[in-house]
Amino acid sequence: MKQSINIDQEFEHIREYWSPKVVGCVNDQYVKLAKVQGELTWHKHDEEDEMFLVMRGELTIQFDDGEVKLRPGEFFVVPKGVMHNPVAADECCILLIETVTTKHTGDVETPLTKTIEQQLG
Amino acid sequence: MKQSINIDQEFEHIREYWSPKVVGCVNDQYVKLAKVQGELTWHKHDEEDEMFLVMRGELTIQFDDGEVKLRPGEFFVVPKGVMHNPVAADECCILLIETVTTKHTGDVETPLTKTIEQQLG
Repeated sequence: MKQSINIDQEFEHIREYWSPKVVGCVNDQYVKLAKVQGELTWHKHDEEDEMFLVMRGELTIQFDDGEVKLRPGEFFVVPKGVMHNPVAADECCILLIETVTTKHTGDVETPLTKTIEQQLG
Repeated sequence: MKQSINIDQEFEHIREYWSPKVVGCVNDQYVKLAKVQGELTWHKHDEEDEMFLVMRGELTIQFDDGEVKLRPGEFFVVPKGVMHNPVAADECCILLIETVTTKHTGDVETPLTKTIEQQLG
C-alpha cells in the first residue's frame, strides 16, 4: 500500500509550536512540518542548508544583515553557516527540508530545542 | 539582497510540459518546478529517491503494482530503484526534490527527456 502524505491533515496533529515533525525522507533529507509562533532562537548549522517553505501564515527569517519575509507558497534556503532566527507574529505553518543530521537549533540549545527522536516521534 | 522564491510566480514562466526548472538548491538536492500534462515515461532512478509535491491539479504516479493519486498539498517520495510513470489527465503543477545528479527520465531517454542544463536554463 503506497501512502501519500496530506500536509493539511498532518498539521492537524501538531499542537506544539516550534516542534517539527518528520513526515517524509527523500535521499538524505527529512521533510518536516512545523507550526510556529513567536521566535525560535538565533543559531546556525555549520554544514547544512535548511529550506523553509511557508504553507500558511507568514514567517520572517532574521539575519545579521537583514530579513526575509515568506508568505504561503514562498520559500527560502538558509545557506549553511549563516546565523538566522525564524520568527512569526501569528501562527504559521511551514514545511522544512533538512539533512537528516541537522540539529533543530544548530549549535545552541534552548528550552525550545527538540531532539531528532522528538521530531520522529 | 536575500531573495525568496514565489512558487506561483515561477510557474508563470513555465510554458512547456514535462520541462522541470531548477528554482533552488538545498544541500545536494535541487528544488524543481514542473507543469505536466499527459504522461512522462516509465523509468527509475537506481540511486536516488524523488519527491513529488502537487501544488495545483492532480497527479497520478503509476507503479508496477498500483498507483498513487496526489492532490494539492499532497506529496509522495518514489524510492530509488522503483519503476514509475507520472501522468496527469489535466494540467498539473508540481514541486520536485531530487538529488542534483538525478536524470530526468532515469535510465531511459525519450523525446521528452530534458538535460540538467535545460532544467537550469
